[in-house]
Amino acid sequence: MSVKTMVSLSQQLQHQIDNKTKPLGALGRLEELAHQIGMIQGTTHPQLNRPHIVVFAADHGIAATGLVNPYPQSVTAQMVLNFITGGAAINVFCRQHSIGLTVVDAGVNFDFDKQLFGDKLLSRKIGYGTKNYLSDEAMTREEAQQAMAAGAAVVADLAAQGCNCIGFGEMGIGNTSSAALIMSCITGIPVEDCTGRGTGVDDQRLEKKKTVLKEAFRKHLSSVTANPGALTILQHFGGFEIAMMTGAYLKAAELKMVILVDGFITTAALLLARLINGQLLDYCIFCHTSGEAGHVRMLEYLGVEPLLQLHMRLGEGSGAAMAFPLVQSAVGFLREMASFDSAGVSKSE
Amino acid sequence: MSVKTMVSLSQQLQHQIDNKTKPLGALGRLEELAHQIGMIQGTTHPQLNRPHIVVFAADHGIAATGLVNPYPQSVTAQMVLNFITGGAAINVFCRQHSIGLTVVDAGVNFDFDKQLFGDKLLSRKIGYGTKNYLSDEAMTREEAQQAMAAGAAVVADLAAQGCNCIGFGEMGIGNTSSAALIMSCITGIPVEDCTGRGTGVDDQRLEKKKTVLKEAFRKHLSSVTANPGALTILQHFGGFEIAMMTGAYLKAAELKMVILVDGFITTAALLLARLINGQLLDYCIFCHTSGEAGHVRMLEYLGVEPLLQLHMRLGEGSGAAMAFPLVQSAVGFLREMASFDSAGVSKSE
Repeated sequence: MSVKTMVSLSQQLQHQIDNKTKPLGALGRLEELAHQIGMIQGTTHPQLNRPHIVVFAADHGIAATGLVNPYPQSVTAQMVLNFITGGAAINVFCRQHSIGLTVVDAGVNFDFDKQLFGDKLLSRKIGYGTKNYLSDEAMTREEAQQAMAAGAAVVADLAAQGCNCIGFGEMGIGNTSSAALIMSCITGIPVEDCTGRGTGVDDQRLEKKKTVLKEAFRKHLSSVTANPGALTILQHFGGFEIAMMTGAYLKAAELKMVILVDGFITTAALLLARLINGQLLDYCIFCHTSGEAGHVRMLEYLGVEPLLQLHMRLGEGSGAAMAFPLVQSAVGFLREMASFDSAGVSKSE
Repeated sequence: MSVKTMVSLSQQLQHQIDNKTKPLGALGRLEELAHQIGMIQGTTHPQLNRPHIVVFAADHGIAATGLVNPYPQSVTAQMVLNFITGGAAINVFCRQHSIGLTVVDAGVNFDFDKQLFGDKLLSRKIGYGTKNYLSDEAMTREEAQQAMAAGAAVVADLAAQGCNCIGFGEMGIGNTSSAALIMSCITGIPVEDCTGRGTGVDDQRLEKKKTVLKEAFRKHLSSVTANPGALTILQHFGGFEIAMMTGAYLKAAELKMVILVDGFITTAALLLARLINGQLLDYCIFCHTSGEAGHVRMLEYLGVEPLLQLHMRLGEGSGAAMAFPLVQSAVGFLREMASFDSAGVSKSE
């Protein structure tokens, strides 16, 4: 779109929004959403087709140590099975809103039975979990590239099937720790201020988690500072699911999809993707503010305010799913509401 | 329910919530909602049946003066026609969420053609708008009683048809002024601090609106203070739609329905109803914080925090409709999510 076309479309959208039978601005954030989605799709009559959430799951070397996580590492695989059999929160919410759901094994430390689960689970396993960043790099540069490409390919396939609205979720015991390290690298906020309770560590374990992450940060600092790109950060701190989401965001923006941004870990992946595509936020709708401590500061860093504040901190893309009806409402009012003219309603004096 | 039964049910609900496959508390406000709805319905397996929004419309004598409202009074009737033909925001949102919608003529200054609109519009007209409270009482005590009874009857009919989740909306040019006066009577907050921009008055008109409402408040103060009940307040400041909502709230609570509370004017009616039934809030889910200035202070007064903050200020029950999917999600996760046991997922250490 040329700048002139963009300005013109923006004005047309605003005119259309302002002439709906309501006081000027009375639909608040829905009006901003309608405008944004119109601009993404390049039309005054946007629509959301085949909305989809992709949950990327992977394990983290650090989790095997139990230093940062109250749940054992095996819960990642158990929850993937729960997703496949439809019993997790994200299943309930996707069914409720007719959102498609795809689960991707990005690197879970478990062999899922392909014969049993067939196309309910996409196997894109990069490895059986990352390495522990207290002693190693989490993954190789090649693995990070491979994971980003795999995430991008999943999005491209969904887009080819007609999906134009996508959200990402994740499952990975230990992944709030990776996300905190990534956040600290990109925002410059000390890693202890990026560290939260994850699935719910107590005060004592939170202090321990902060100590562990400060140590990990120090260990990799010089390497990351020497080459501070998304691949390097992923290489040092993981995880496979975060790398896949990074690639997935980039592909979704490239394909001009409406992107539903979930919570803390998915926003960490977004921070990485934004290092590569500075225009990424144009495509993003921030869905909810996670209860995980670092998320508020991530959002402040990005200068955005999500649609929902429900004190949720579950991951799985659950916040994206919960906000989807609001996004639908924005498109709905733009497409379906009467104008002052068409309804014969008087405007204000 | 005996106190013992209530305590036992509350514990069962909390146990059920805590054993879903998610970290403790990770669904945030949805967990509180699930618990509340279970308690309202007296079951660990609540469900929402035939959700419905009732929009009460009426005119206000003050609006004919143009002193408080930028839109002419005739917009009330025009918007009722818009509701009937399906072109308003509330129509779009109710269609989206399969929420039933009933429009009630509580006292619009217009004769709707019954042959044309049939059962799309319930005629419960108390009069052709209230009287102007700058010179008169808005309505008689009998009219206030009649309106409350009519609102209650509409709710009873819907309940008889199987509805157990209901929200109220309103349309009435000038009704933020009545709501501000009611709010001031009940909360003791000076009326100028209860007064906002309504459909969007500018700074100059806002000052004028405050002056007018201060004058109205002074005029009726001694009568209201002498007998400070809901009927008296309605009698002095109106309106018919607010009186009907007051009766509607009371009936909905009596019938143990889940009540979706919308914005500024509907919360003013709730303040009135709460003077009569002190347990009313147990049944209420506060859906959104209106952009109308006084609403935040009403909510503080009640000690509640709504689910949504989307800067909407439209009325019509639009905030209630927007929050409905969240309420559905709360019931959905409680009913459908797997437990740690059923899914074979390990709990935290």
